[in-house]
Amino acid sequence: MSFARDQIHNFAAGPSPLPQPVLEKAAQGLLNYDGTGIGVCELSHRGKEFKAIIEGAEANLRKLLEIPDNYAVLFSQGGGTTQFSSVFLNLLAYRRLQHANDADYAPPTVDYVVTGSWSSKAYQEAVRLSIPPAPGAKPFAEPRIAATTKPAKFTTLPKADEYDFSPEAAYVYYCENETINGVEFPADTQSPYAFPFDRVPEGVPIVADYSSSFLSRPIPKIERHAIIYAGAQKNLGPPGVTIVIVRKDLLVDTTEAMKLGGVPAVPIQSEFKTLADNKSLYNTPPVFSIYVSALVLEYLLNERNGIAGIAEANAAKGEALYAALDEAEANGKLRVVVKEKDARSLMNVTFVIEGEGREKEFLEGGEARGFRQLKGHRSVGGIRASLYNAVTLDSVKALAEYIKSF
Amino acid sequence: MSFARDQIHNFAAGPSPLPQPVLEKAAQGLLNYDGTGIGVCELSHRGKEFKAIIEGAEANLRKLLEIPDNYAVLFSQGGGTTQFSSVFLNLLAYRRLQHANDADYAPPTVDYVVTGSWSSKAYQEAVRLSIPPAPGAKPFAEPRIAATTKPAKFTTLPKADEYDFSPEAAYVYYCENETINGVEFPADTQSPYAFPFDRVPEGVPIVADYSSSFLSRPIPKIERHAIIYAGAQKNLGPPGVTIVIVRKDLLVDTTEAMKLGGVPAVPIQSEFKTLADNKSLYNTPPVFSIYVSALVLEYLLNERNGIAGIAEANAAKGEALYAALDEAEANGKLRVVVKEKDARSLMNVTFVIEGEGREKEFLEGGEARGFRQLKGHRSVGGIRASLYNAVTLDSVKALAEYIKSF
Repeated sequence: MSFARDQIHNFAAGPSPLPQPVLEKAAQGLLNYDGTGIGVCELSHRGKEFKAIIEGAEANLRKLLEIPDNYAVLFSQGGGTTQFSSVFLNLLAYRRLQHANDADYAPPTVDYVVTGSWSSKAYQEAVRLSIPPAPGAKPFAEPRIAATTKPAKFTTLPKADEYDFSPEAAYVYYCENETINGVEFPADTQSPYAFPFDRVPEGVPIVADYSSSFLSRPIPKIERHAIIYAGAQKNLGPPGVTIVIVRKDLLVDTTEAMKLGGVPAVPIQSEFKTLADNKSLYNTPPVFSIYVSALVLEYLLNERNGIAGIAEANAAKGEALYAALDEAEANGKLRVVVKEKDARSLMNVTFVIEGEGREKEFLEGGEARGFRQLKGHRSVGGIRASLYNAVTLDSVKALAEYIKSF
Repeated sequence: MSFARDQIHNFAAGPSPLPQPVLEKAAQGLLNYDGTGIGVCELSHRGKEFKAIIEGAEANLRKLLEIPDNYAVLFSQGGGTTQFSSVFLNLLAYRRLQHANDADYAPPTVDYVVTGSWSSKAYQEAVRLSIPPAPGAKPFAEPRIAATTKPAKFTTLPKADEYDFSPEAAYVYYCENETINGVEFPADTQSPYAFPFDRVPEGVPIVADYSSSFLSRPIPKIERHAIIYAGAQKNLGPPGVTIVIVRKDLLVDTTEAMKLGGVPAVPIQSEFKTLADNKSLYNTPPVFSIYVSALVLEYLLNERNGIAGIAEANAAKGEALYAALDEAEANGKLRVVVKEKDARSLMNVTFVIEGEGREKEFLEGGEARGFRQLKGHRSVGGIRASLYNAVTLDSVKALAEYIKSF
């Protein structure tokens, strides 16, 4: 069977749908970019055409998210998983250089807020990379869990008084939106479930994995962050490029830190300073992913009324779907995974269909209606509808109707 | 001014031109992959469609290059530059595990053959990553230069007796084709300029950076290599994916090696075993780069008569261009950078136009004829024509004619 795009509602958790006008333009650019007679993947990444693409993307991203001037915007490779390592490596190098004259340099703590699978993985990577360079030697760092919702199976968020930050951590780390169970820190910083910026000791850098909520709404307290990163494949563009927003004073020469000792070796490609010094062109970048991202940014800015328009649309989508789900739950037909409204993700909505064989029935009926990729993550099962920017309110309403009628 | 594709001859050093039929198919796949109603960048990387794409790409690559079964084929991210670090990290971990019971584990030598800018950078990265974990402690490795053509400004290759390999190196490293000056190890393993496989001490792993000659012809003595890697953006596909071909016994758990001590920390994404265990899907891969690479591989196999057909076409292109250049050099009009025929690259042909202002004239005249990206690398200047697989013999003949007439 063959389908047209408009017959399909794609609720994928990522790679996610992309706006139709963007894809049409990208298909054209693939063969002939802007009348050059050369496709966008065949242009020199150091030529004036690509320079305009990447600089335009950065300028539009800065505008959309109001990124302050004292932050660098990097286009890196390797996805969020690579950043699990890179943030650790760069921030330990920074810490070491801050203590360059300290003869008794002690491994710092690094504080993780663990609210799901992705922040767990980031924490585990910090543990791996902390392994001492020789048995009995000092570890490179002491990873700590500053708060976790593991006892609640990651279906809620910690409240402000449940955080236990160490006073002199090299950094505090959290994941803004966990895609698997669908918990997201609320945008309202007054909510009891908001990330407690004010409790983080002054001067301790805050790192946020924004992969799955990036560009879905404004970033609360962006200026309170040290590093914000996001893989492109949710709201920005095709997988292959990862945005790293990093405060410029944290861009340090990791080789200098390595010479002081007490920090792990940093692969040159993982050094943020190298990327920044070379305007993200230290080596050949993922040009197509950056090109499509540039088109998406332009589209968000000009066709979607910027970040306010996007946030409004996403709020409406979430409201429509959660209302249908809450109603169905009240009728005993299903179970919404995240109970606490302030902890619910607007990007990944998870629920479980009650009754033997009913989930399969739900998925098959959905499939026949053109709904795709509604199956929950293989680690938890159930249903997951991801409502990234390119998912329309009409698609969400169609799903809500289906839920009501099921 | 606006150009059609057929008005342009793109001699880019990479990202390089891609075959027209591949781009047409990719443009279609971008909007609707195989009638799914979903574009290829919007498919789940764990779904059956993408599984077929990546597995098909691997199968075709194995067929084209006759990759033995005892090698894994990995689709990684980060380009060749990331591999400068990754090969060092993985092979040091391997070495450490081979000496797991050695109480006096000594840092091994690592031997580099330095024949240009890329192998220089790889060597420098080994030097960086060898920095001891504390001042006065043992370094992680002792990088050596086993041979170099730096005194000849990288315009030739070493002869067999100019190599000085250490007997127990953790590995020997070379770059098969250096793009900046255009030197390439000859395919004829009997040539005095061939890479001297037989001089490498038995058991020492051999690593080759094949980025810029990958898929341009068969790989001589592939079974003698431990690791062969290549960024896609020359003969395979768009930048963003890097192929790593690694002998399966070298896939080791780097965390175990780190626990033994004496090796640098290995970011999880750099561990070849992790990528292999997860069939290159440990995290979201660069799906579009892999998709286009899959289309290119299919095209090379079915429309270009496989690797023999490609090698023949590239030999003919090189012959046509070098003949024109040698003739022009004999007439005193220009200077070919690489004199020794056996050391000349078939992928990157470099020359210098003699006479004040003549180079600018040459480039401008070429531009008017539709020749693009002929300017040499900014570090050396001059002219560079790159003749990757998608550059046609007709384009090369047009350039050769222009050189003769200039």
